[in-house]
Amino acid sequence: MADTTKKTLIVFSGELDKVLAAFVIANGAAAMGDDVNMFFTFWGLNALRRPENVRTSGKSSLQGMFAFMMPRGPGKLTLSHMNFAGAGPRLMKRVMRQQHVSSVEDLMATAREQGVKMIACTMSMDVMGLKREELVDGLEFAGVATYLGEADEANVNLFI
Amino acid sequence: MADTTKKTLIVFSGELDKVLAAFVIANGAAAMGDDVNMFFTFWGLNALRRPENVRTSGKSSLQGMFAFMMPRGPGKLTLSHMNFAGAGPRLMKRVMRQQHVSSVEDLMATAREQGVKMIACTMSMDVMGLKREELVDGLEFAGVATYLGEADEANVNLFI
Amino acid sequence: MADTTKKTLIVFSGELDKVLAAFVIANGAAAMGDDVNMFFTFWGLNALRRPENVRTSGKSSLQGMFAFMMPRGPGKLTLSHMNFAGAGPRLMKRVMRQQHVSSVEDLMATAREQGVKMIACTMSMDVMGLKREELVDGLEFAGVATYLGEADEANVNLFI
Repeated sequence: MADTTKKTLIVFSGELDKVLAAFVIANGAAAMGDDVNMFFTFWGLNALRRPENVRTSGKSSLQGMFAFMMPRGPGKLTLSHMNFAGAGPRLMKRVMRQQHVSSVEDLMATAREQGVKMIACTMSMDVMGLKREELVDGLEFAGVATYLGEADEANVNLFI
Repeated sequence: MADTTKKTLIVFSGELDKVLAAFVIANGAAAMGDDVNMFFTFWGLNALRRPENVRTSGKSSLQGMFAFMMPRGPGKLTLSHMNFAGAGPRLMKRVMRQQHVSSVEDLMATAREQGVKMIACTMSMDVMGLKREELVDGLEFAGVATYLGEADEANVNLFI
Repeated sequence: MADTTKKTLIVFSGELDKVLAAFVIANGAAAMGDDVNMFFTFWGLNALRRPENVRTSGKSSLQGMFAFMMPRGPGKLTLSHMNFAGAGPRLMKRVMRQQHVSSVEDLMATAREQGVKMIACTMSMDVMGLKREELVDGLEFAGVATYLGEADEANVNLFI
């Protein structure tokens, strides 16, 4: 057994179900006293977007187009299966409420309270055309070297 | 090198190709003498469903709808690419037989014989509307805390 | 902290964005002096295909069909989201050039220079109908036992 219980999660997928799984694992680990680092890359960054349109400067038109077409925040994420043009996520959220399973928004708030570190990948932000002001507060910004440094100190590293 | 060779696999995706990969890794590790824990969550639970329709009680209509629309067991899983409305999985299974690659059903039987532990995530079962009687025999039922406890004792942890 | 910094990456997905993420992590780790092993399985093998059509013998017609329908090399990979019949990858590559992010082809060349080991999964090659001569030079060929041996010696193991 390793002598550390740090965890790192790369949140690559921006689908509601995978983001949900990531936060359930992150919060579970944090509740057990573990250091948890979540690295949001590519589509995963969409889970960190503010729901409102944010005016930005310095984007190329291509970057603007990408950003325009991607979902803004957990309320807009799709499912990896059975999405049905948005009906799937609505149904899943309703079942989650029925079953008293926390929403992604609630899980994210709990993660913050528990000190889970959320890091946005700067290289992906450039590729996806996302600026810091479009993302929620309380994030750190870093690249792959930071990820690898944390992963070297962790005993569980997942790519989600 | 860690002083444990336990492995944990989270089987999140319910696609034939990913479930196949998960069982190949699980059986390979078990054959080398490793303890292996497979945690089936979300769509991955579909690989554990009984092929026949099982009458259940206590489901909300939403849960029933979800369960109705999802594939029942490995024989019904789709491919993550080139599914072609079910033709892709049929073709892949035929090539697998030609090439003497075991089917998911056979790999699952081998996994049981080798003592691979298969655990169904209870939170996901609630969200997907799946009851224990709809799943195959010989499973354990647990949540994220159990997963994290096992992962802390393992040296390879994958999210599939 | 583990006393090894070896990394293993299973590249299962053949999507441009995931292959890109895999090589960014691989090259980052190699630059920090780590041993890195990339195992290409299933759709991930498409990233290793030669762009030209290669005449092969000994394929069943089913294997030939599979191989015919899959993308040949990094230039043909699709995106996991917003693919838009190929427009998405073209746009993403253009943004990557604008932002001075290396292409998959460049990252692959760097990986070779840095000594990242690229291993093609032979069982997947059989299932997908891919022959060695259809893949780029400089690969190793192995199965799950080799993967598990490397993973046991590594401190970060990801399934991408």
